[in-house]
Amino acid sequence: MTTTLIAGGTVVSAIGRQLLDVLVEDERVVALLEPGSQRLGDLRSTADVVIDATGTYVIPGGVDAHTHMQMPFGGTTASDTFETGTRAAAFGGTTTIVDFAIQTPGERLQDTFALWQDKAAGVCAIDYGFHQIVGDVNDESLAAMGELMAEGVTSFKLFMAYPGVYYSDDGKILRAMRRAAGLGAMMMMHAENGIAIDEIVKEHLARGETDPIYHGISRPWQLEEEATHRAIMLAEVTGAPLYVVHVSAKQALEQIAWARGNGANVFAETCPQYLYLSLEEQLGAPGFEGAKWVASTPLRSRAEGHQDALWRFIRTGDVSGIATDHCPFCMKDQKEMGLGDFSKIPNGIGGVEHRMDLMYQGVVDGRITMERWVELCCTTPARMFGMYPRKGAITPGGDADIVIYDPAGHTSIGINATHHMNLDHSAYEGFEVDGAVRTVLSRGKVVVDHGHYLGRPGDGRYVARGLAQTLV
Amino acid sequence: MTTTLIAGGTVVSAIGRQLLDVLVEDERVVALLEPGSQRLGDLRSTADVVIDATGTYVIPGGVDAHTHMQMPFGGTTASDTFETGTRAAAFGGTTTIVDFAIQTPGERLQDTFALWQDKAAGVCAIDYGFHQIVGDVNDESLAAMGELMAEGVTSFKLFMAYPGVYYSDDGKILRAMRRAAGLGAMMMMHAENGIAIDEIVKEHLARGETDPIYHGISRPWQLEEEATHRAIMLAEVTGAPLYVVHVSAKQALEQIAWARGNGANVFAETCPQYLYLSLEEQLGAPGFEGAKWVASTPLRSRAEGHQDALWRFIRTGDVSGIATDHCPFCMKDQKEMGLGDFSKIPNGIGGVEHRMDLMYQGVVDGRITMERWVELCCTTPARMFGMYPRKGAITPGGDADIVIYDPAGHTSIGINATHHMNLDHSAYEGFEVDGAVRTVLSRGKVVVDHGHYLGRPGDGRYVARGLAQTLV
Amino acid sequence: MTTTLIAGGTVVSAIGRQLLDVLVEDERVVALLEPGSQRLGDLRSTADVVIDATGTYVIPGGVDAHTHMQMPFGGTTASDTFETGTRAAAFGGTTTIVDFAIQTPGERLQDTFALWQDKAAGVCAIDYGFHQIVGDVNDESLAAMGELMAEGVTSFKLFMAYPGVYYSDDGKILRAMRRAAGLGAMMMMHAENGIAIDEIVKEHLARGETDPIYHGISRPWQLEEEATHRAIMLAEVTGAPLYVVHVSAKQALEQIAWARGNGANVFAETCPQYLYLSLEEQLGAPGFEGAKWVASTPLRSRAEGHQDALWRFIRTGDVSGIATDHCPFCMKDQKEMGLGDFSKIPNGIGGVEHRMDLMYQGVVDGRITMERWVELCCTTPARMFGMYPRKGAITPGGDADIVIYDPAGHTSIGINATHHMNLDHSAYEGFEVDGAVRTVLSRGKVVVDHGHYLGRPGDGRYVARGLAQTLV
Amino acid sequence: MTTTLIAGGTVVSAIGRQLLDVLVEDERVVALLEPGSQRLGDLRSTADVVIDATGTYVIPGGVDAHTHMQMPFGGTTASDTFETGTRAAAFGGTTTIVDFAIQTPGERLQDTFALWQDKAAGVCAIDYGFHQIVGDVNDESLAAMGELMAEGVTSFKLFMAYPGVYYSDDGKILRAMRRAAGLGAMMMMHAENGIAIDEIVKEHLARGETDPIYHGISRPWQLEEEATHRAIMLAEVTGAPLYVVHVSAKQALEQIAWARGNGANVFAETCPQYLYLSLEEQLGAPGFEGAKWVASTPLRSRAEGHQDALWRFIRTGDVSGIATDHCPFCMKDQKEMGLGDFSKIPNGIGGVEHRMDLMYQGVVDGRITMERWVELCCTTPARMFGMYPRKGAITPGGDADIVIYDPAGHTSIGINATHHMNLDHSAYEGFEVDGAVRTVLSRGKVVVDHGHYLGRPGDGRYVARGLAQTLV
Repeated sequence: MTTTLIAGGTVVSAIGRQLLDVLVEDERVVALLEPGSQRLGDLRSTADVVIDATGTYVIPGGVDAHTHMQMPFGGTTASDTFETGTRAAAFGGTTTIVDFAIQTPGERLQDTFALWQDKAAGVCAIDYGFHQIVGDVNDESLAAMGELMAEGVTSFKLFMAYPGVYYSDDGKILRAMRRAAGLGAMMMMHAENGIAIDEIVKEHLARGETDPIYHGISRPWQLEEEATHRAIMLAEVTGAPLYVVHVSAKQALEQIAWARGNGANVFAETCPQYLYLSLEEQLGAPGFEGAKWVASTPLRSRAEGHQDALWRFIRTGDVSGIATDHCPFCMKDQKEMGLGDFSKIPNGIGGVEHRMDLMYQGVVDGRITMERWVELCCTTPARMFGMYPRKGAITPGGDADIVIYDPAGHTSIGINATHHMNLDHSAYEGFEVDGAVRTVLSRGKVVVDHGHYLGRPGDGRYVARGLAQTLV
Repeated sequence: MTTTLIAGGTVVSAIGRQLLDVLVEDERVVALLEPGSQRLGDLRSTADVVIDATGTYVIPGGVDAHTHMQMPFGGTTASDTFETGTRAAAFGGTTTIVDFAIQTPGERLQDTFALWQDKAAGVCAIDYGFHQIVGDVNDESLAAMGELMAEGVTSFKLFMAYPGVYYSDDGKILRAMRRAAGLGAMMMMHAENGIAIDEIVKEHLARGETDPIYHGISRPWQLEEEATHRAIMLAEVTGAPLYVVHVSAKQALEQIAWARGNGANVFAETCPQYLYLSLEEQLGAPGFEGAKWVASTPLRSRAEGHQDALWRFIRTGDVSGIATDHCPFCMKDQKEMGLGDFSKIPNGIGGVEHRMDLMYQGVVDGRITMERWVELCCTTPARMFGMYPRKGAITPGGDADIVIYDPAGHTSIGINATHHMNLDHSAYEGFEVDGAVRTVLSRGKVVVDHGHYLGRPGDGRYVARGLAQTLV
Repeated sequence: MTTTLIAGGTVVSAIGRQLLDVLVEDERVVALLEPGSQRLGDLRSTADVVIDATGTYVIPGGVDAHTHMQMPFGGTTASDTFETGTRAAAFGGTTTIVDFAIQTPGERLQDTFALWQDKAAGVCAIDYGFHQIVGDVNDESLAAMGELMAEGVTSFKLFMAYPGVYYSDDGKILRAMRRAAGLGAMMMMHAENGIAIDEIVKEHLARGETDPIYHGISRPWQLEEEATHRAIMLAEVTGAPLYVVHVSAKQALEQIAWARGNGANVFAETCPQYLYLSLEEQLGAPGFEGAKWVASTPLRSRAEGHQDALWRFIRTGDVSGIATDHCPFCMKDQKEMGLGDFSKIPNGIGGVEHRMDLMYQGVVDGRITMERWVELCCTTPARMFGMYPRKGAITPGGDADIVIYDPAGHTSIGINATHHMNLDHSAYEGFEVDGAVRTVLSRGKVVVDHGHYLGRPGDGRYVARGLAQTLV
Repeated sequence: MTTTLIAGGTVVSAIGRQLLDVLVEDERVVALLEPGSQRLGDLRSTADVVIDATGTYVIPGGVDAHTHMQMPFGGTTASDTFETGTRAAAFGGTTTIVDFAIQTPGERLQDTFALWQDKAAGVCAIDYGFHQIVGDVNDESLAAMGELMAEGVTSFKLFMAYPGVYYSDDGKILRAMRRAAGLGAMMMMHAENGIAIDEIVKEHLARGETDPIYHGISRPWQLEEEATHRAIMLAEVTGAPLYVVHVSAKQALEQIAWARGNGANVFAETCPQYLYLSLEEQLGAPGFEGAKWVASTPLRSRAEGHQDALWRFIRTGDVSGIATDHCPFCMKDQKEMGLGDFSKIPNGIGGVEHRMDLMYQGVVDGRITMERWVELCCTTPARMFGMYPRKGAITPGGDADIVIYDPAGHTSIGINATHHMNLDHSAYEGFEVDGAVRTVLSRGKVVVDHGHYLGRPGDGRYVARGLAQTLV
């Protein structure tokens, strides 16, 4: 048994901050200690390892509830494996990801879950769980949802977009939501009206409008807002709790805020890209460069005010959590598949490494409080997906997933800077963050320290999750 | 130095619950301990006192941010002294109150604060702080607000009701809010349009409508909603954070929810009486009995749905905290002053003893989660008024204000039951609660145990408060 | 040439009422005359026919913009032919209907229009136009919309309900709306989420819940509200004006009111059945009797407050027009097809005869003004569908479609009372109206007088319509 | 008896437009005639005067429901007398104004009405009525409101602004509204929180911020929105219909739209200055020039989007009428009183001459329809204040107040252009309008023709008004 004392730092939780010492035994936190107590002196002096956290923030390890490592998409595969992606996550202060097992039509749900377990087994740098995408709603897959619950998969995702691939019509959604409600499971939704979008895509292509920006233009906010509203109503009919992933349109968030104001169990996730990047500036970059930012939902227009509105909804609590929807594709050979036809560009942006930093910048910029940073990036994602108090907080009995964050540090983002993702570009190239991850502990083990990776593949283990702890 | 170990209980915080042991040294919590850790065994075995909390909830001591002990009102004085009222609070699991020093026109603000300090000094059973009522907004009192901040009074209350007594017109409100914004202080508001209400009161009296129910009818929800909206707009103009006390109308809460949806620092307090009691049932009781429930804002009509709506706004987070507005007047000699003229009935309901129980019943009834109970009754009030982490949480470094709450216990409310307030009736006579306060620690000292009071006058000390910790 | 003078009555328009004389030459109004003018005396004395309207309201003939005469549905046909249905309409003070030509998948749009023209030709008692239902959106039918515009069909209806029959998916809706926007045509929508509803229907049938009330329960307000919102957003994307037919849920109207508040060209139609009848009272009648009121959208729950809310939205102007959705099926042999399976009951309620009376009762009951009655039942429907000033107003140059309505009269509704529809029951059996249609002129000819029918089949002619005149 | 035929023009009403001939006998319209009818030929050939309106719009004379001729204000008097102001109005196509009799504290209400009658008697170019300002709400003035009703004054105005001058506190407003509700009278409101504004004014002056733009900055939209909401709630408590004058803030209109959506009898007036001019461009003009546009409510910021929002609320129907709040003060000797202290600048903008033209430009610009132009500027103001059908429409029996408006004409606005107001500057200097008033008839008499004034002082007569005809 090894004991580690993290001493002298300011521990930040979702509700406050204090100078506290954290005592770790092997993989778990066993005590929070008042620094000034004499009587606890022995505990301190006998620790095997002491990490001096003076002058830093000691926060729970980040929980990224939305990643897609080595995901197949349109004939290629996301460029980060579970190995490279989770290592990059660790560099960025994220110690848990929840990835997605994907069922497409014709597959057995259990088989797809087993397949994804295999992909991740033995290679991850940090802990990981799975949501299950149900791409083929039928009697068998609905039954199988119960089996997966027993395996610690307590959240199921449907798509209102991507007809012919993952798409579920409203009848299937209704059935799956009924089942989820019965199981107590969380229903996750990609809320865009894919049927209508596909018509608009055809219109643009028919007019020869093939540049990356048309990816965004063909997915107007109205069709995200619409699908969001529809998902809310179907959830209301069925009683299922609803978590809307990667919300990027302010009007979609207005719908979610309205539902929440009615007391509904409806939750919104957004991602740093929707807070910092825009349709005009990134997706509309000259030539084919915009392809880097082709993702769905798309980046939204800054002129329309989406970014500022999203920050506001973060303040109001209508955004529950920040994830990355990390789904990297290189420009070379991958994004390039869509040269001359934006609809063939693989959808996805890589960012698992930068979430904690980018949101910390929101603290520096006065947009959110320190406590809200921890809540959005660590605590609520853990509670949302049934991992608290094991994850998401620094509390005795919980895993010792801890980040020592240095407000005096500095992080430059870019492919020649901190970049550890397997990606030939960075969505945030040139961004500068006024703070830095100094040390990262994953279940008690220091896996990153001062920019050095000290872990190895397989450090991370599967997390079987319980029911959502955020329902009202 | 005495060490106390509270062992075996489920510690509930605003964000979760866990089996944890709590180690107290003298007045403060010094450690939270993982119960299963061998290594911490010594700490346990050497504690001077061990309190077995097995099977119970271990929660932070309650924080009641709105009480009026021995308050002068209309020629009489609230029937609970700081001594009797704080003892009753302790019985009910409340370990901190924030009372109000009251300035009326012509008085020096500092003098009134000193006067209230004198009233409370040396007699309280639990800790206490003060808000300051500014009843005479002028250059001197505005200047004095700064002095009071230095004394730990960081919240100032104005009245839009009670013309000629505490009333401030909109110009005075604007000035006081500007000052509060400059100081970083919280502006508290009694939001009812007293000028209009006084006209309606005259109308009723002129028609011989003198029964207690006319107190409520003369204060329609429109005039609470209106004043709430006005306060929000004046806060918006000035930048002051706003805390609206004792909200009872659903429409007033709709206004607050709307402001919060815009990202404003606007907060709502409500009280158990507005959640459980109604205009028809209580205020409209036969004869003069309704006088027991004469308070402003008034109890609202159940037929109009205010009570259910308030519970809903508690779920949505638009109600930030639960207080009691404890302001007891006996029927005999006090409430009776208004026989034949409802406008002469002293305004106030006593309930400081029952808040924690009544809100726990909301947990049992499935209206709120256990975590939300703690958040509403303990954590957020402490954060709202600058007392966290000293108050409002069980955390190392914080005061050992701890309640051991027994879910297998039972509490009968009434003047022959648990009643310890100095009041000849109970607003909740006959209410039954499916749980009970078992043990109460105030700064480490057991002051109540199994219904016995073990403390003494003067246990409680003044709490100098900091700035609000709830601002977004 | 025959001249008719309608003298002495109070002419009511959408904006006011006045004592005015109306001069008709043959089929058209040629002058409105100030009754007191001496100089116009000649015009009066030389009229061929003088109708004394003293003490009555002289209003434009009613325009019912939503009927389904002899419509095929689920293996049977609506029981009123164009002959019987238009005669019943005339009895009730309606002088224009707009019926629907219906395309189902595989049919040529123009052919279906021609077919419906044939059905109506030479048999109608009053004038009639057609909307076109586009049940098969494809390149050909989209092209054909332009041809129909030239024939005076300027409004096209889609269904979000009835999968496999008339249903259009969102891609088809988007395409049709784009086309409508280009043509300046009005898009009409049956807004219910039929895909989700069909799943709920299956659930009920699987549980043996086969009574008529389950028709309503299987179509919850959420799925009308949802489809309404979706239609609004698709209209917003495409720029098409949108007219939502037979709105019955208050929440659907809230969506429409919201869109209108944003300045959108979105319009709501409701029907008397949704204002007067309810799920509990009619659809839930004992045994199979509820089948009389099986229609989609369904009657809504009175306990949920839909009826009162609809009247309120009529007051606010968010309901633009009142139609009947007249689609009668007899109990015998028709409604009975659904004995033991509510999903097989032909959908429809007959009411073309009673609209003007039922809405006049709203005037008597103080729910709407006299002017609003005329606006809702005559003027706005005519303007909405491009028939003003030929229809919908009493104005020189317009058709002499005029109703003399007697406020001292009385109308009893029921199959042994005023009933002239070919229907073996009445949806409004036993209703009493405090007013009566006295005389009806259709293009200058008295077709109904004091309850006697004076017209003959073929009096009515096809009305080629122009573009909507209600757009903002 | 003289008969006039206005032939060949397109008569525009609030609900449509048609080629119609208008027959006038002396002062009144006696017939609307279908132009093609042979039988009516005699009527045409025997007319004493025929006005050829071919190619023009024939519309009802404008009704400006808000003017202040020769109004005393802050030691000076509005520069237009009833004679000059009404003549200017006639030039601009306005044939009826409703001005305000003004009571200040201490005056008898009836006396002030008599005084204003005297000012107008025998000098007006067009017809006029009066609203009554109640500046001293007390038992006597409340009683006198009944007397004024009998004189044709059916609308009473209160001020939430101007403490110490016209200001009524909320108790007085409540009393006056109760009285208005009992009488069926319309309550008009200047909705700005004057008590709070006066504090802000003091703040600016104390900081030496004395330029005209501070007039606007000291009256932020929040304090218009707030007062508007307050007036709505007081109206709701009392049941009085409410007409909010000169709304300039979009948020105030949002409040009104919300009340209207609840079915309330709440109406908004706005003025051309709030649609075309802004805080930045006009009120913030260099030096003292901004003084020209000092008026309350103030011009609003274009950057904040008020102007566009107001146009939108005009489209949605939430703005009921357009008036001018004509209250001209010359720069010389009048506006100059506020050099060095914006609070001393007389409040008011002159525009009675330009309302019809400026709103017609809205038609040309595609912002409103022709029908809505007539509705906003003529019909609804007449109905709102009980003058229909005598005013506000071209209908037999109504006054022959008719404007022949030439869409091929052009109007240049400015002091050297069409300007006939007694004002040494123009608020709209340099504005160009794509249309022109050609001929104006007031009660059958041509008072303006091709820019020439053909009337004389005293043509205009007092209009005793009835109750509002716009209530729902």
